[in-house]
Amino acid sequence: MRQRNKPWADTFLQENKHLVIPEAQQHKGNWNKVFGNNNPIHIEIGTGKGQFLVGMAEQYPNINFIGIELAKSIVVTAAQKIMESPQQNILLLNENAANLREIFADGEIACIYLNFSDPWPKTRHAKRRLTYYSFLEHYEKVLTPDGELVFKTDNQGLFEYSLVSFSHFGLKLKEVNLDLHAVEDPTNVMTEYEEKFSAKGQRIYRCRAHFSQN
Amino acid sequence: MRQRNKPWADTFLQENKHLVIPEAQQHKGNWNKVFGNNNPIHIEIGTGKGQFLVGMAEQYPNINFIGIELAKSIVVTAAQKIMESPQQNILLLNENAANLREIFADGEIACIYLNFSDPWPKTRHAKRRLTYYSFLEHYEKVLTPDGELVFKTDNQGLFEYSLVSFSHFGLKLKEVNLDLHAVEDPTNVMTEYEEKFSAKGQRIYRCRAHFSQN
Repeated sequence: MRQRNKPWADTFLQENKHLVIPEAQQHKGNWNKVFGNNNPIHIEIGTGKGQFLVGMAEQYPNINFIGIELAKSIVVTAAQKIMESPQQNILLLNENAANLREIFADGEIACIYLNFSDPWPKTRHAKRRLTYYSFLEHYEKVLTPDGELVFKTDNQGLFEYSLVSFSHFGLKLKEVNLDLHAVEDPTNVMTEYEEKFSAKGQRIYRCRAHFSQN
Repeated sequence: MRQRNKPWADTFLQENKHLVIPEAQQHKGNWNKVFGNNNPIHIEIGTGKGQFLVGMAEQYPNINFIGIELAKSIVVTAAQKIMESPQQNILLLNENAANLREIFADGEIACIYLNFSDPWPKTRHAKRRLTYYSFLEHYEKVLTPDGELVFKTDNQGLFEYSLVSFSHFGLKLKEVNLDLHAVEDPTNVMTEYEEKFSAKGQRIYRCRAHFSQN
């Protein structure tokens, strides 16, 4: 995602620590206390400008959502969008997904969303793809035993790669959809990217998978 | 595939037992003797009119190909096509794929091709899909430990279903291609269906998978 320099970002983050939680690792294993309830926690990795997160939080008020976004200049935009929403079930982290296990305890998360992740098309960058096996190892740990990984992208190459990566990791697919917008689905919350690309007639791919051996 | 009644089919099959082998189960474990060499054996399930089989046999003269086709009126058409070819590395069986393990010994086959299999779109017919788990059980047995399953279709629903079915069976994907004809591949031998549908701009999906835990 294109990043613009935002000189006000640091001040904004200082003033909104209730929404963009600093030093996330201090809350490892205790995110329910931060939310003040025992609802299941879903996370989105690479949350971008936050449209998906806000849409989901509105649709599922009894689930707590945490958006993780590495880019400071983008996480502040997501925060602004969340502040316009009445939803209380959303938090943001300005963190790197590679540190997922330092932020969340084993089994703390019920669902992980990967939406339109960077495809890193060059083979030598495969390790950076969020569906590379080292990331899958993190996901397996922080997810509950019946937790779900939901992956959505318009990038054919990344989707193909990810299906292969999932199968080698032993993930079980619950669903594969090779043209998500061919049939209208009112429960599908679109990201900013998804709105733009599907409007151009580009196919959106989605799959849902779980790590459990059951 | 549309079947026409061919009153001459029985006579044709009687006269061409060297090509369309009757009582296939008698050769279980000994197909190399039927071919007269020890080359690896690849089979196509639902071989249709035989274009794929002949093209593959020409491209890979050191592999033995067996086409399995349930419909008598279609297997004779495939046989006629093969008779026009100089290739000696092709045989046909007028058999039901459900009987695969009565025809082939465990580990006798190096590769299985499923091309444009009947999608059986109704859920109550899922058992008839050639990627339903009871068929996968047969494939796993007759394939060599490093044997491959290659599946090609234009049917989005069948491909989605099959990826889910494969993942639950623990198959490992070697490759997934969600738009086979987007990039020209001179090694891809097209079936009759594939030529027709890809000419219409329809996407062709392909995956290659193996059962080995390695």
